[in-house]
Amino acid sequence: MSEIYIVAGGDMRFPALAEQLSEKYTVYTVGMDKQKISCEKAIFAESLEDIPCPADCLILPLPVSSDGKTLNAPFSEKAVPLSQLADIVKANGKVMGGMITPEVKEIFSVRGIEVTDYFKREELAVSNALATAEGALQIALEEQPTIISGSSILITGMGRISKALIRILSGFGAEITVCARKYSDLAWAQIYGCKTVMLSKLVESDALKKADIIFNTVPHIILTEPVLKECSRKCLIIDLASKPGGLDIQSAVQLGLRTIWALSLPGKCAPVSSGRMIAQAIENILSEQNTHDHSP
Amino acid sequence: MSEIYIVAGGDMRFPALAEQLSEKYTVYTVGMDKQKISCEKAIFAESLEDIPCPADCLILPLPVSSDGKTLNAPFSEKAVPLSQLADIVKANGKVMGGMITPEVKEIFSVRGIEVTDYFKREELAVSNALATAEGALQIALEEQPTIISGSSILITGMGRISKALIRILSGFGAEITVCARKYSDLAWAQIYGCKTVMLSKLVESDALKKADIIFNTVPHIILTEPVLKECSRKCLIIDLASKPGGLDIQSAVQLGLRTIWALSLPGKCAPVSSGRMIAQAIENILSEQNTHDHSP
Amino acid sequence: MSEIYIVAGGDMRFPALAEQLSEKYTVYTVGMDKQKISCEKAIFAESLEDIPCPADCLILPLPVSSDGKTLNAPFSEKAVPLSQLADIVKANGKVMGGMITPEVKEIFSVRGIEVTDYFKREELAVSNALATAEGALQIALEEQPTIISGSSILITGMGRISKALIRILSGFGAEITVCARKYSDLAWAQIYGCKTVMLSKLVESDALKKADIIFNTVPHIILTEPVLKECSRKCLIIDLASKPGGLDIQSAVQLGLRTIWALSLPGKCAPVSSGRMIAQAIENILSEQNTHDHSP
Amino acid sequence: MSEIYIVAGGDMRFPALAEQLSEKYTVYTVGMDKQKISCEKAIFAESLEDIPCPADCLILPLPVSSDGKTLNAPFSEKAVPLSQLADIVKANGKVMGGMITPEVKEIFSVRGIEVTDYFKREELAVSNALATAEGALQIALEEQPTIISGSSILITGMGRISKALIRILSGFGAEITVCARKYSDLAWAQIYGCKTVMLSKLVESDALKKADIIFNTVPHIILTEPVLKECSRKCLIIDLASKPGGLDIQSAVQLGLRTIWALSLPGKCAPVSSGRMIAQAIENILSEQNTHDHSP
Repeated sequence: MSEIYIVAGGDMRFPALAEQLSEKYTVYTVGMDKQKISCEKAIFAESLEDIPCPADCLILPLPVSSDGKTLNAPFSEKAVPLSQLADIVKANGKVMGGMITPEVKEIFSVRGIEVTDYFKREELAVSNALATAEGALQIALEEQPTIISGSSILITGMGRISKALIRILSGFGAEITVCARKYSDLAWAQIYGCKTVMLSKLVESDALKKADIIFNTVPHIILTEPVLKECSRKCLIIDLASKPGGLDIQSAVQLGLRTIWALSLPGKCAPVSSGRMIAQAIENILSEQNTHDHSP
Repeated sequence: MSEIYIVAGGDMRFPALAEQLSEKYTVYTVGMDKQKISCEKAIFAESLEDIPCPADCLILPLPVSSDGKTLNAPFSEKAVPLSQLADIVKANGKVMGGMITPEVKEIFSVRGIEVTDYFKREELAVSNALATAEGALQIALEEQPTIISGSSILITGMGRISKALIRILSGFGAEITVCARKYSDLAWAQIYGCKTVMLSKLVESDALKKADIIFNTVPHIILTEPVLKECSRKCLIIDLASKPGGLDIQSAVQLGLRTIWALSLPGKCAPVSSGRMIAQAIENILSEQNTHDHSP
Repeated sequence: MSEIYIVAGGDMRFPALAEQLSEKYTVYTVGMDKQKISCEKAIFAESLEDIPCPADCLILPLPVSSDGKTLNAPFSEKAVPLSQLADIVKANGKVMGGMITPEVKEIFSVRGIEVTDYFKREELAVSNALATAEGALQIALEEQPTIISGSSILITGMGRISKALIRILSGFGAEITVCARKYSDLAWAQIYGCKTVMLSKLVESDALKKADIIFNTVPHIILTEPVLKECSRKCLIIDLASKPGGLDIQSAVQLGLRTIWALSLPGKCAPVSSGRMIAQAIENILSEQNTHDHSP
Repeated sequence: MSEIYIVAGGDMRFPALAEQLSEKYTVYTVGMDKQKISCEKAIFAESLEDIPCPADCLILPLPVSSDGKTLNAPFSEKAVPLSQLADIVKANGKVMGGMITPEVKEIFSVRGIEVTDYFKREELAVSNALATAEGALQIALEEQPTIISGSSILITGMGRISKALIRILSGFGAEITVCARKYSDLAWAQIYGCKTVMLSKLVESDALKKADIIFNTVPHIILTEPVLKECSRKCLIIDLASKPGGLDIQSAVQLGLRTIWALSLPGKCAPVSSGRMIAQAIENILSEQNTHDHSP
């Protein structure tokens, strides 16, 4: 008999995650009672009582909880305490979740269960960056009355999201300038066919005046007032950086610039793929744990 | 003194067109009284009386008219007869419009004025194809809960729009299959990194089963019932072909397939760029006419 | 029993062609007695007597003959008259060759046999353009002491070879300018991410001064003295156009410019692929003939 | 008066390096007496006596020396001791070189001069990877009788060279499979449109059988006998990894596989660009040192 997996709570990504894990395991979903997308293979559980226990593996959402005690379950009518979930996992069972806090960790560790954070997986960060980049393009296409082809794009930062963005924007035939702090980042940008400008020289460069769209990926305020003053009035600024973002919003408003702070794009724009990416990270963790278990 | 141009009627593309022509000429817009986008350089005329006449050049919209008599002016409160417009053009003036019918031609020819159809320009067809392809991508990104990267795309036809689509989709990292009727079209598709299938062998190929999205560009029904029956239930069909389209809609509905017939994307998704493209075609026509005028 | 095919003469492309046809037919090669590349499946015939006749199909080389009488067979010690080859084909047999002259046609037509010219196939022209573009890149890589990435490339003409070149050069991250005569060609070049310049404005543009490499594809002298005078002394000119080429060689020599007239690249740089491309064109011809035969 | 720079010894990259530095400084070259490429701006010094001393900055080659004492100067007739070079640098002068050994360091440190290793700069490693990738493509184009377009390429490793290779090969329309050890490397490969295979599963995958060309970038023997046994006899293996390389050469020979160990490609295939890349790294070092000097 195949192992029992529980996928608990989460947003639109988690039904897709449950479906993918159903290829190998018997998967129950719980905390998705309001869910619109029905699963084909995963088994819908109205409540925890409907799940045969103890479960072999519990998959918690991303993030696991907003208060440290209750399951993050926007598609559920009920509040599910994490402690109840912890109780239905077997002694040496596996528990995984995303962005695990010490408070959440504690709930499971007192029961002798270790929780693995799948959100720390580098491969998930990479594939999330791709989903973010596609979502950013969707916003750009929706917002701009002009085509992307031939337009001037400024990308700040040269991390994962920027690299994914560059590849997509190149297909559109955009003229891309990358602004970063490190010489090696600028060297990469050149390899990928971009113009480059050192962050320290951004204000005096012509990259700001020319930019039709700015995508920021740096999570601290680098689009300051002096920078924003150089932008064209028609420029669209899409901030992809997590809190606090990279934009001095007050200055942007005063200058009348169009700005969009686009957070959590993978879950919003491509929930099914994003759910599968998390499922893949979970399978990779399991595969590595098995390899270690088999070591002498 | 610079020449007087009139840009009359039209949708959201025409203010942008007027702006671009304003770089060189004195441009009046008329029949855009409800227009939201204000022009910076072009001069807004409430009615024909506000325009100093006779005008050197009259730019009519795309299409010029829906009834053969009245200006196509969705952003105007008033009905403007084409004959009135014809009366304010000088004797040897230039008149251009898009998709000119014999009826429209007649209105001007009786006054000794020839009308040039800018919509017949190949360079406009090419750049319109690019705007269509970007619009098609926007729809795909909005509709699909999955990322484009790695997804299986089937493109039917290998004309301008298909070539523009392939370039963009390649940047996304999609797996593209092109279905066409001619060996040379399939050879081009291979050069552009696509898999290929002859139209006559489409039904028995696995391209339909695998396709996450189908973009049709062929303007006759090639996505017939036997073809649609092979598609995955999750497939999204985006028909980019002009009337009658390429899709047997009734069969698609019966089979429960998601379909979108996306017409006139350039004007809807990228009106500013599309207006500039028409302006560019007009400038090319004028440039060619001047060259001929100067010939002995 | 499968049909008897004869592949006669030709350069290094023809053993590969024979191999590919051997997947379906019994193939004899003749006129390749000095050939280095041995065939695995095709049967080597020392002379015509070794071939069971009459043959169903005879494949002649590209070009068929240089004197209109004798087989073009650079890898053979012997001279093979075309008439002898014509005699071993059965009455309603098929004969195909490349660049067939009236003289060659005559040799077969007097025997009631029609000769089909595979070199007229558009799909072969397309795939040959790809092989030419790859060969051109090889030359550029060999000749230049600089990397292609970031270098300025000028391409004259916007036909098949140019389109194949653009795709490859884009992967290298080169900055490409296309010079052509037609607005629609320039529109295509823009779609493919290139800068553009009208041929009539080439001399006064900065495209010549900046160019590190010029690839010409236009088969008449467009790189005239006034054009060449604007080129950098370090510029490499690779002429890919068939006779008479596009280069005023005398002026280029006087100006001390490095020039390479690269003809027949597919057969030289990628003989195996090029042979397969011809085989594919032949199979397409056969497939179309069969379809017609079966029509009522 | 501008600062005095000495560029001493080195291969074909160093004249280009000297030229680029001549834009800002007075540059003397020494130890290049057999050099074919003449410099335009840099001043040729027959011997050290011809250089006005003390010099502000001394640029040593890559590597600096093969015996730890004498300048690496393949284009010089004379042996130049490093100690003599050290003597003509001023007290607080700058000395830079590539792959500096403790022995070399000592020669300068006893004179109170610190030597900076430009080869440790990440941006140089990145741009060198690009030059290596272009050189690898040149080899592939020269060696293969087939086109790259549509061919199956296996790349082992997912470091800098692999990323540069993928971008170029994508332009050619090759089908690329990346084999690596880390899930995140495979995720990147997918973003860049490649198929992927875990190194631990390489032998049982079909990637080896299908590969027309294998590019190895991993500097330890991963192409072992069991791996090589699965390769097609027609496969070309290009090893780009530094010593000891990634190939069990003995097994490859026994199996009759074509292999090329391509070392030091940047200096061989693109000496001018590679020289400029080193010059750029040197300018970056100087720029950073100046910034620090100005700090309080």
